[in-house]
Amino acid sequence: MLDVVDLLAEISDIGRDAARGGYSRRVFESPERELRAWFTRHAEALELDVSTDRNGNLWAWWGEPRPGAVGTGSHLDSVPGGGAYDGPLGVASALAAVSWLRETGHRPAVPLAVVVFAEEEGARFGSACLGSRLSVGAVDPVSVLGLLDDRGVALADAAAEAGIDPTGMGADPTVNELSSFVELHVEQGVGLADTPHAVAVATGILAHGRWRIRFTGEGNHAGATRMEDRRDPVVAAARLVLDARDLAAAGDAERSTRATVGRVEFIPGGTNVIASTATVWADCRAEDDDALADLVRAVSIAADAIASVEGCTVEVTAESVSPAVVFDSGLRERIARAIGDDVPALSTGAGHDAGVLAARIPTAMLFVRNPNGVSHAPSESASDEDCRAGVDALTRVLADLTGAEAASA
Amino acid sequence: MLDVVDLLAEISDIGRDAARGGYSRRVFESPERELRAWFTRHAEALELDVSTDRNGNLWAWWGEPRPGAVGTGSHLDSVPGGGAYDGPLGVASALAAVSWLRETGHRPAVPLAVVVFAEEEGARFGSACLGSRLSVGAVDPVSVLGLLDDRGVALADAAAEAGIDPTGMGADPTVNELSSFVELHVEQGVGLADTPHAVAVATGILAHGRWRIRFTGEGNHAGATRMEDRRDPVVAAARLVLDARDLAAAGDAERSTRATVGRVEFIPGGTNVIASTATVWADCRAEDDDALADLVRAVSIAADAIASVEGCTVEVTAESVSPAVVFDSGLRERIARAIGDDVPALSTGAGHDAGVLAARIPTAMLFVRNPNGVSHAPSESASDEDCRAGVDALTRVLADLTGAEAASA
Repeated sequence: MLDVVDLLAEISDIGRDAARGGYSRRVFESPERELRAWFTRHAEALELDVSTDRNGNLWAWWGEPRPGAVGTGSHLDSVPGGGAYDGPLGVASALAAVSWLRETGHRPAVPLAVVVFAEEEGARFGSACLGSRLSVGAVDPVSVLGLLDDRGVALADAAAEAGIDPTGMGADPTVNELSSFVELHVEQGVGLADTPHAVAVATGILAHGRWRIRFTGEGNHAGATRMEDRRDPVVAAARLVLDARDLAAAGDAERSTRATVGRVEFIPGGTNVIASTATVWADCRAEDDDALADLVRAVSIAADAIASVEGCTVEVTAESVSPAVVFDSGLRERIARAIGDDVPALSTGAGHDAGVLAARIPTAMLFVRNPNGVSHAPSESASDEDCRAGVDALTRVLADLTGAEAASA
Repeated sequence: MLDVVDLLAEISDIGRDAARGGYSRRVFESPERELRAWFTRHAEALELDVSTDRNGNLWAWWGEPRPGAVGTGSHLDSVPGGGAYDGPLGVASALAAVSWLRETGHRPAVPLAVVVFAEEEGARFGSACLGSRLSVGAVDPVSVLGLLDDRGVALADAAAEAGIDPTGMGADPTVNELSSFVELHVEQGVGLADTPHAVAVATGILAHGRWRIRFTGEGNHAGATRMEDRRDPVVAAARLVLDARDLAAAGDAERSTRATVGRVEFIPGGTNVIASTATVWADCRAEDDDALADLVRAVSIAADAIASVEGCTVEVTAESVSPAVVFDSGLRERIARAIGDDVPALSTGAGHDAGVLAARIPTAMLFVRNPNGVSHAPSESASDEDCRAGVDALTRVLADLTGAEAASA
């Protein structure tokens, strides 16, 4: 019987980031490919049929693929300096659940697929949930094949190097075999931290997206240019960071509005140089699409006003926008019955492949308690006991959804 | 007769930066080494004896090195995306002036050296005027040999690759041969822009330095973390950028206080991640050492206050501090007589190798008019006519300082 804690221990040295701490596992790069090999080895040992689809997502099938199949899984890529659980916990829990179902003699009435989606974090090519969005046809492959990573490598070339034909990328029939999808994930807030519950069911995902805000001023010498003669885009960018924070904070309690700047680019980027352009990436979220649109509109108005005051110009570009997701209520209720009716319900501010699939099929998520609420950082954590409770819940859900004989878990 | 405009045209394709515009010529990297070869070719054609000193500075001697020599020159490295004139104009003008003196039959009574100093901008290893500061013994080689560039290459290794023995770096007797040094440089402000003068003499250099200000907060998920639960170091960094700007602007008119942030580093640096640390490099300048100390003290107090409000910690580290320079008044007067008594006098906010040498020997600078005042950026400019007027002024000054027969220029 595979144990989720052992499984995670096996990969605890893969893709460590010495500079940032935690893990940097970027899609199609060597650590992420090592994780794929690890997954394939375990899936094949469980007698699952493993294949990579046209978009680089990994599928491990219990039973011949056909309509009506149940899917579970998550992703193996990480943000730069991410934690050990975001993604891998869902994949490892799926393997452990299948192992449990097999060993307890469960015989599924419909096929079960464990999926590892590619580039969920968008950490390499800047486009989150890329594997799932390509597969459901939500993104045109032509628009993403030329995306460059920070070393100037195009997605098309990175995919080709990993053995995926980039000309074949796009909407994929495999995903049409699924009639439902359940993703287990570490909680990314403190929603369960002070409760007696190790596991929650998700109600939905905040609307979210990324906006690139580029201020252009006048590059100049840091010493020889009087303060009053400057048109400094870094000053404009700093003001935007504060305005975006204030605008989001004002609406968080009522509409879950959030805004974050975690990445900027200053050109030329020298210590003794007034920059000529400063680009800020604003990650914005809100409880529904209207609230998000309102937040982004307010941020854009602030950007225009700041540019005007600082003698700069500004350009605001949406890089990706994902509508709010409300998970299927029927599936949620069925899951609650399978786990136990007192399971708490939580929404999340994080995007997930399950949110992408929710536009097509009934989809749900299970969250495993995170004691400090930290995610996307090295100190992300979940206790061994809670991880095992997550596998237990997922096993009950998969047993129920794939029908026939119930697992004895 | 070498023409300064032709000389600059010869190197106008070397080290272009396609991404930033302008030039990126980093010390000991291939474009800067190509420029050294170009300089050596011209200097040898002028029958100067060319050698590289223990710190990677290039020397071209007219006459046997001995005490009492006159020095001129500048540097060939650039900031990232810098202009065509900052550095190369002084080097090319020195070559053109020597060519003029030779062809008009000038016979110097003392040796004349043309010097190309290494890593003046500090763009690769973060330490400005490194070649001149090592040579005069102002910096301990042990403290800089381990400095890393942005690709993790140590100064020691970069020097070795360029043929310089890093274990021999340090105070160098060659510089002791000089009894005076005159550096010609493009103006980096608008001090001459609206005057009838093409050339000015420098009075001094603002006190200046670089401070690294590192805020540490709590890395977390950009979507799942409520605004009120955050300890976001990027927000702290943004507030510091604005406070530093405001503090410098308040004193610029009276004490020439300036503060610039052109470079930051956020870790981990992901779009959908609240950073765990945000580092800001603050370039601070002021007319004298007291004014600079006051400015930096105010910035540090602001950093502490911001950190406390944002739930972060902060660490302020001086990376380099250069006292204010007042150029030798005797040499200035002599230069003014050689060029013409109406030559204007200007101070500058930029650091220069001439400022480093000023602690040891009488030193002066000539500035060539910059029509828009832009420097450290691709649009840095000087007219052909003004560049030639600069050479004419430098030629007269060198003829005067090296004595014997005056040039017929």
